[in-house]
Amino acid sequence: MAALRVGTRAVEGRFQASNGGGGGGGGMAPSSRLVAAHREAKPRSSHSAAPWKLPRRRAGAMPLWRVAVFASVALNVATLALLLHHYATSPPPHHHHHDAGLATRSSDAAVHRRARTASSMAPSTGKPAVTTDSVINLDHGDPTMFEEFWRETGDAAEVVIPGWQTMSYFSDVTNVCWFLEPELDRQVRRLHRVVGNAAVDGYHVLVGTGSTQLFMAALYALAPDAAAAAAGEPISVVSTAPYYSSYPAVTDFLRSGLFRWAGDADAFKGDSYIELVCSPNNPDGAIREAVLDPKTGNGRTVHDLAYYWPQYTPITKRASHDIMLFTVSKSTGHAGTRIGWALVKDRAIARKMTKFVELNTIGVSKDSQMRAAKVLAAVSDGYERRPEQTKETMTTPLRLFDFGRRKMVERWSMLRAAAAASGIFSLPEETSGFCNFTKETAATNPAFAWLRCDREDVEDCAGFLRGHKILTRSGAQFGADARYVRVSMLDRDDAFDIFINRLSSLK
Amino acid sequence: MAALRVGTRAVEGRFQASNGGGGGGGGMAPSSRLVAAHREAKPRSSHSAAPWKLPRRRAGAMPLWRVAVFASVALNVATLALLLHHYATSPPPHHHHHDAGLATRSSDAAVHRRARTASSMAPSTGKPAVTTDSVINLDHGDPTMFEEFWRETGDAAEVVIPGWQTMSYFSDVTNVCWFLEPELDRQVRRLHRVVGNAAVDGYHVLVGTGSTQLFMAALYALAPDAAAAAAGEPISVVSTAPYYSSYPAVTDFLRSGLFRWAGDADAFKGDSYIELVCSPNNPDGAIREAVLDPKTGNGRTVHDLAYYWPQYTPITKRASHDIMLFTVSKSTGHAGTRIGWALVKDRAIARKMTKFVELNTIGVSKDSQMRAAKVLAAVSDGYERRPEQTKETMTTPLRLFDFGRRKMVERWSMLRAAAAASGIFSLPEETSGFCNFTKETAATNPAFAWLRCDREDVEDCAGFLRGHKILTRSGAQFGADARYVRVSMLDRDDAFDIFINRLSSLK
Repeated sequence: MAALRVGTRAVEGRFQASNGGGGGGGGMAPSSRLVAAHREAKPRSSHSAAPWKLPRRRAGAMPLWRVAVFASVALNVATLALLLHHYATSPPPHHHHHDAGLATRSSDAAVHRRARTASSMAPSTGKPAVTTDSVINLDHGDPTMFEEFWRETGDAAEVVIPGWQTMSYFSDVTNVCWFLEPELDRQVRRLHRVVGNAAVDGYHVLVGTGSTQLFMAALYALAPDAAAAAAGEPISVVSTAPYYSSYPAVTDFLRSGLFRWAGDADAFKGDSYIELVCSPNNPDGAIREAVLDPKTGNGRTVHDLAYYWPQYTPITKRASHDIMLFTVSKSTGHAGTRIGWALVKDRAIARKMTKFVELNTIGVSKDSQMRAAKVLAAVSDGYERRPEQTKETMTTPLRLFDFGRRKMVERWSMLRAAAAASGIFSLPEETSGFCNFTKETAATNPAFAWLRCDREDVEDCAGFLRGHKILTRSGAQFGADARYVRVSMLDRDDAFDIFINRLSSLK
Repeated sequence: MAALRVGTRAVEGRFQASNGGGGGGGGMAPSSRLVAAHREAKPRSSHSAAPWKLPRRRAGAMPLWRVAVFASVALNVATLALLLHHYATSPPPHHHHHDAGLATRSSDAAVHRRARTASSMAPSTGKPAVTTDSVINLDHGDPTMFEEFWRETGDAAEVVIPGWQTMSYFSDVTNVCWFLEPELDRQVRRLHRVVGNAAVDGYHVLVGTGSTQLFMAALYALAPDAAAAAAGEPISVVSTAPYYSSYPAVTDFLRSGLFRWAGDADAFKGDSYIELVCSPNNPDGAIREAVLDPKTGNGRTVHDLAYYWPQYTPITKRASHDIMLFTVSKSTGHAGTRIGWALVKDRAIARKMTKFVELNTIGVSKDSQMRAAKVLAAVSDGYERRPEQTKETMTTPLRLFDFGRRKMVERWSMLRAAAAASGIFSLPEETSGFCNFTKETAATNPAFAWLRCDREDVEDCAGFLRGHKILTRSGAQFGADARYVRVSMLDRDDAFDIFINRLSSLK
């Protein structure tokens, strides 16, 4: 149970990768070395109406028409002053210097944005901004790269939630997943139809607090029921290495009697198991299929398709597995919203997964569900409003996958150049395929780089990079060699650029 | 493990209370009998500016002043048209017929509200509306009673979330609870200071997806660590009966090797345990203290103070226990927002609880955190803006606890009258105390009625009431006699009124 102990002891102020072992992989506790005295200044200009006077003409009785003009214009000015007051809150600064194409719409969008955010309170801004001397934390897949896109979408992706809205526990008492907002159900199905990455007809849509909660829900639903488990052993949970470091941590942290982590699927012997298939795979981006055959014995599979979106990989077929997991964290970049969803074929499994979420958190934030629905709708709108998809329209700012792909292509090209310049790193080979969504051949551009340090004297690549103030997650946490590290490709431009510069200089 | 099996098999279309056993208590699956073909019509009027003309006078050259009047008035009309367009979305209908006091502000608030919700998508409205023939579901503590209050608060409790906001996993990398929005931290501390119900200085504030998640987090943090657990038995989790029906269900559903439900604290023998102290108690509203002495042996206590707010009970002292749990579901009525918080003294415990939430859901919805912060701020504003608290100002619409207390007093009075009229039910005796918050003596008005059916031939009170289309939760689920039921006192007026009418007619 070394894995579990590690998982429970990660504390703030310690770098995750230094935990060692395979089990601390879900670790998100930020490093104290990243903590800068950075608080974004939030200027609040105090607009007031400019003093206004009618031109002075002559003293004496004022004719009725002049009174009318005065009253009317005064009204306009008052209205204007009121509006100006609403526009007084300004958003945090932009982070897009790579891509100038988006700037054209920004002034319009900014006006809208400011008009609507006046009543907001100060939200957090994520990790502190970085400078060339900063420790760069690419340990987590924090998808802040996408902020740049969403800053330009104005009202299209904005939600307004009045105080009395969605106060009930219940969303739809007729649905298996009774806490699922019907609007999110609709937008999830719509987006999958637009992209063509997963079948939705005949599936139940379930919502979770991120896909992590639905991963646990799936284990709970697929494990033999409690009575059977009491008699026998917990069911084995396996995944082909390198596997997502959270899988062992999340499976084992409560020492459940229902399921237990059993490591690499390739090495598994037995006929009762749950196989986790992550495709494209976290950490290495590989396209995966189940390696165990569920037709023999009591095997079940869960497909984690968090990265099966056009910005990361060509969409080569419409997936139609029994249980498929998705999340807004990686599809749209809204990690802070904590919304994942599952597409589930079997009604009894869907019910049991729903029961898990009920017992664990009594449902899922409706505020975030409404926000996710709005965001997914904005993505679909980008492609459905104009049915013709030609290269000429590919630069439309509201097209998320176009933005994402452009960024990922650019970043992978920078990374490969940096690795080549350095000479001591290697990366997975680029693969490509025909994308049914974009209707053209595209390369895979994974959300993480699975980087290998080839220098003979470096056995701990994460430690080596940490020495150069680059935080990554060690291959050891993914059931692989410590010469590998996983590097997030989804951080903001400034952090990514510094990372690239540092990497290329390492010899 | 009968309890667990029950818990996992509750499905939609089955009434929760019919599960029997003590373990299905977390059950929220709605009854199919409640499902009506009810979808709230959402009228969207298509306002357009009324045709407007200057009064026709005579043809010929138009003097400058007339041009000015025309331009100015036209501008006003255009502004008006624009505003009208924004006001086109209308909210669901009100449900307040008991309390007319709030109606005075409603037109103002409605104007604001409509102006801001134009870009919202259709949210759910909770359980379907009821008629005199409906099955009335008071099984769950769905706090929709509070909608009436929040419909009147306009911008004060409304959040606007732009598409790019809070996309990161991280909220504050310097905090033990790194996913806690600093604004929520501030507003939680502020409200406790305003109300005086809990100490906050020297405490860590942790956020959870409802207090249920923090309850699990506390068990995880207080249990001996995995290595110790592997050697010995899971730690015993106990609570004095009648105890909240979710405690056994949530403790045992994953069959954790770290902790295990061990029933009534009064009957517990041993020195290694976690005692759950719910005060005021769910289901019976009793003021509770720990019955086991944590100073002997390895006992730890968790205080669930979800109902320790002035609308339910006099605030007699500032609680200062090691771990205290709260939730917006019961304090403000925002159950759908799924935000709970814990006040935790010990830093190591706070870290381990944070680790639980990290492994379980990688943090908590930031959208809901921002909304909860806004709502709590609105509550505090109701009391801090006017420091003088006299009876004359007690009816201010923005004072949540005044609203809540008025409603609860009214409802308890109706319930006691109905029980008396019926003659076959008894209720806990009313107790009272001096409230340090309101500075006057107040009675307890629990969020649930712990109703006993005194008729000799009725051994299953829940079954008896179900026969009269009233759904409640059986005493058996709380470790108590099935002659008792728990009845939610927090539903909407229409449902509560029908319940009262039916109850009073039962003989």
